[in-house]
Amino acid sequence: MQKITQYLDEQAERHEQELFELLRIPSISTDPAFKPEVLKAASHLRDHLARVGMEEVMLHETAGNPIITAMHARAGQDKPTVLIYGHYDVQPPDPEDLWDSPPFEPTIKNGAVFARGASDDKGQMFTHIKSIEAFFKTGTDLPVNIKLLLEGEEEIGSPNLLPFIQDKKELLSCDMVLISDTAMFDENVPSITYGLRGLAYMEIEVTGPNRDLHSGVYGGGVQNPANALCEMLARVKDDKGVIRIPGFYDKVKSLSVEERKAYRQLPFNESAYKRHLDIEEVYGEEDFSTLERVSARPSFDINGMWGGYQAEGAKTVLPSKANAKVSMRLVPDQDPREIAQLFKDFIKSITPPGVKSSVREHHGGRPASVDFNFYGVKAAAKAYKSVYGKDPLYTREGGSIPIVADFKETLGADSILMGFGLSSDAIHSPNEHFALKDFHRGIKTSATFFNCLSDF
Amino acid sequence: MQKITQYLDEQAERHEQELFELLRIPSISTDPAFKPEVLKAASHLRDHLARVGMEEVMLHETAGNPIITAMHARAGQDKPTVLIYGHYDVQPPDPEDLWDSPPFEPTIKNGAVFARGASDDKGQMFTHIKSIEAFFKTGTDLPVNIKLLLEGEEEIGSPNLLPFIQDKKELLSCDMVLISDTAMFDENVPSITYGLRGLAYMEIEVTGPNRDLHSGVYGGGVQNPANALCEMLARVKDDKGVIRIPGFYDKVKSLSVEERKAYRQLPFNESAYKRHLDIEEVYGEEDFSTLERVSARPSFDINGMWGGYQAEGAKTVLPSKANAKVSMRLVPDQDPREIAQLFKDFIKSITPPGVKSSVREHHGGRPASVDFNFYGVKAAAKAYKSVYGKDPLYTREGGSIPIVADFKETLGADSILMGFGLSSDAIHSPNEHFALKDFHRGIKTSATFFNCLSDF
Repeated sequence: MQKITQYLDEQAERHEQELFELLRIPSISTDPAFKPEVLKAASHLRDHLARVGMEEVMLHETAGNPIITAMHARAGQDKPTVLIYGHYDVQPPDPEDLWDSPPFEPTIKNGAVFARGASDDKGQMFTHIKSIEAFFKTGTDLPVNIKLLLEGEEEIGSPNLLPFIQDKKELLSCDMVLISDTAMFDENVPSITYGLRGLAYMEIEVTGPNRDLHSGVYGGGVQNPANALCEMLARVKDDKGVIRIPGFYDKVKSLSVEERKAYRQLPFNESAYKRHLDIEEVYGEEDFSTLERVSARPSFDINGMWGGYQAEGAKTVLPSKANAKVSMRLVPDQDPREIAQLFKDFIKSITPPGVKSSVREHHGGRPASVDFNFYGVKAAAKAYKSVYGKDPLYTREGGSIPIVADFKETLGADSILMGFGLSSDAIHSPNEHFALKDFHRGIKTSATFFNCLSDF
Repeated sequence: MQKITQYLDEQAERHEQELFELLRIPSISTDPAFKPEVLKAASHLRDHLARVGMEEVMLHETAGNPIITAMHARAGQDKPTVLIYGHYDVQPPDPEDLWDSPPFEPTIKNGAVFARGASDDKGQMFTHIKSIEAFFKTGTDLPVNIKLLLEGEEEIGSPNLLPFIQDKKELLSCDMVLISDTAMFDENVPSITYGLRGLAYMEIEVTGPNRDLHSGVYGGGVQNPANALCEMLARVKDDKGVIRIPGFYDKVKSLSVEERKAYRQLPFNESAYKRHLDIEEVYGEEDFSTLERVSARPSFDINGMWGGYQAEGAKTVLPSKANAKVSMRLVPDQDPREIAQLFKDFIKSITPPGVKSSVREHHGGRPASVDFNFYGVKAAAKAYKSVYGKDPLYTREGGSIPIVADFKETLGADSILMGFGLSSDAIHSPNEHFALKDFHRGIKTSATFFNCLSDF
C-alpha cells in the first residue's frame, strides 16, 4: 500500500484537475435539451477509462443514455469480483441564481470543489477510477477482479439499467457491488449505509373549467383547480407527517429495538442541524427521532407545484388547471408499484366534484437493506478504520438508490455502500460541493478496500 | 335620434377601425415593462377625444399612469351632468399560447373582435365616445352635460384614482356616474347591475429551510413549505366554499326575500353554463344558487401558486419556499381593509411550526350597491328598452369596480352600470372578445340614454 499511497499523494493535483474536466460537462439527464452533453460525458469517461488501463471498455447504446462497462479480471478465480457502480449524469442546477459560482465551472473554496455533480456522483464515482489507476501505474497487481458499470440516467430513475443488467448477467456477474453514492455520517465519522429508502414519484394535474376564468365573475360558483389541488394534497398526510393513504403502512417494517438503539448512539446534534438549515423546529411523526424520520420512515413531499398567475402584480384569474410533482420515500418492505397504485386510487377518491384529476408516474425505486455480516461489509469497515483511524458506524440513508434492490435480485449480489461525501454537500441543491480532502481519502479507502477484500 | 342612428349606421365600419387602433396598444398596467404602451394608449385617447370635439381634454400626470379628463358642459345647469368613467389599461394576455389570434392584433371571427381589452374595457368605454361623437358630427345638441374620466390603472386596483377624485371634486362634480364595465345578463337580456363585489387580494410566501433540500435526505424530518402552504390554503375554506376565517361573515348582508326572488327569475341555464365551461358540476355554498354564489356571496380563490421544481421530468427537491396569490371577493358591507387584516391574522395563526409565512397585500376594493329608484337608473332602463326592445333586468355582478363606492363617498354620486358586453366575452382570459353587434348597440343605447335622461 505504501507505493500506492505515495503515488496518490504525488498525483493529487492532477487527479483533481481530471475530476474538474468531468464536472465541466453539464450532463443533466432530466432535461432532454442536455442530451448532447450527457453523450459527451459518456465518451469522455470511456476514453479516460481506456487511458487509465481498464480493459474491454465499452459504451453500450440503450433506449436512453449510454451505459459504460470496463473490466480488469486478472486476480484469479479464487479472488472476489467487485462490480463498481456509479453514474455520470447530474441533477439540473436550478435555481441557478442561488449558486455563488457557475454550476459547471468547478470552483475551489474552503478546500472544497463547488460544482453540480461534485459529490453526486461524479466526484465519488471518480475515487474508484483513481484508486484502480494507482494499482496500474505503480505496477501493483489488483488483488481483486474489477468490473465497472457507469450509467447516465440515475437522476431520472435508471429506466434502462435494469433491462441492461438482466441482459448482461454474465458480463456483470460478481460477488458484490460497490457503490459510492451515499454520505458519511459526519466528516470525522466514517459510515457504511445498510439501508436506503425507496421512491415513488408522481405528477398530478387537476383540471377544472376549459379556460382561465375571471375570479370575480366565477369565483364561489366554480371549483377552482388550484384550491382543489391544495385541498387534495393537504389530505395526503396529517400535520405530523403521518400519511393517510389507506394501506400505505401495511408493509412498513418496524424498527427493531437494536436499530433504534444504534440510531440513538449516532452523534447527531439537532440544534446544529436546525441552525444549519435556518429552521426553528424540526418536523415529523411523533415518537420518532429526526434521524429515524429521514431514513427509516416513509415520507410525502411536494417537490414542485404551479398553477395560475405567477408573474408580477395581481391577476384576478381562476386558473383552468393546477399541477404538482410529489414524491413518497419508501422503506423496506414497501413496493413502489403498489404504493403508486394506492396513491392513484387515493387521489381519485378525494378529487372533489367539479374538477378532474390525472396522475402520471415518474420513476420509482425499491427500498433496500444490506446484511452487516457480509464479508464485503467487513472489508469496507477495515478499510475505513485504516484510512480514517476509527471504526465506521452503520447507518440508514433517506435517499434512494433503487438499483441496490435490482442488483440483489438480478445478480444475487449485495451492495457495499461506501460513502465519502457528506450530507452537507448540498447535492440536488445550489452550491453542491465535495471536500477535496474527502475526495483523496475516498481514493485511498477504495484502494485499501480492494486489499482488505482479498484477505477475507 | 333618427339623424344620430343614421350617422352611426353609416360610420359603423370606421368606428370599428378606430376601436381596433386602440386595441393594438398593449396597455398592460400589471407589468411595469409595458409602461410605455400604457402612456401611448393615454396619448392616443387624448388626441382622439380632442378630434371628436370634446373640450378641455387633459392628460393628468399621477404617481402612476395618467388620468384623462374631457368636458362638454353646454346643456345648461338645469340639465343633468353625467361623469363617464372608463379605463384604457388591460389585463396581461397570458397564458398567451392559448390565444387563437395575437392578443394585440384585433381579429374578427363570428362577428366579434378578438383582442385583449376588446370588452374590458376599451370596447365598452369606446361606445360612449362614439355616441358623443354622433351628437357633435350631426350638429345635434348634447341634451346633458358630459364629463369624461378615463384611467389607466383599473387592473391594478386604481391606486391613484381616489386621490385624484378627492383632489378634483369640483372638476368632476356630477349628478351621476356612467360606467360600462359590466356585462349584460345575456345577449338578448339587457341588464343593469345594481350590486358589485369587492376584493381583497393577497400574496403569501411560506419559507422553510434556507435552501432547496434533497427530499430523500431531509423528507419526513423538515417541514416542507409547499406542503405547509397547501395545508394552510386548504384551511381557509371548507369543501363547500364556506370561508373559515374568524369574523369573515360578520358584516355580510343577507339577501332579502325579494332579491332571492329576482335571482330566481333570471333566465339562467345551469346545464349550458356547465357545458360552456366544460365542467361536470358547479360548486359552492349550500343553500345558494350559482348566480347568488358568484355575485351576492363572498368567495376565496387561489389566483396563482408556485414552488419547487416545475420543469420537465422529476427533481427530488424539498423546496425552500412556496408562494401563492389569493383573493377574496367581498359583498356589502364587508370592508376590504378589515378582511385583509382578518386574513393576515388567520394565516399567521395557522402557520405550522418549522416554516415562516408572510402576507403582502395587493389592491383591494369595496363592494357596492346602487338604488333602483334613482332617475338615472330609470333613464338607463328606458334606453335599453328602446334599443333592445325589452325591459332590462336588475342583476348583481361578481366582479369588482371599487371606484363605485369611492364615487358615492367622494362625489355623492350614484353609478349607473350599463353593461354592453357578455359574461362569455372571456375578459381576463385568453381569446377575450366583444361582439361587434354589442359594440354598435352599446353606442346607440348610450346616445338614447343621454336623450332619456334629459326628460326626467
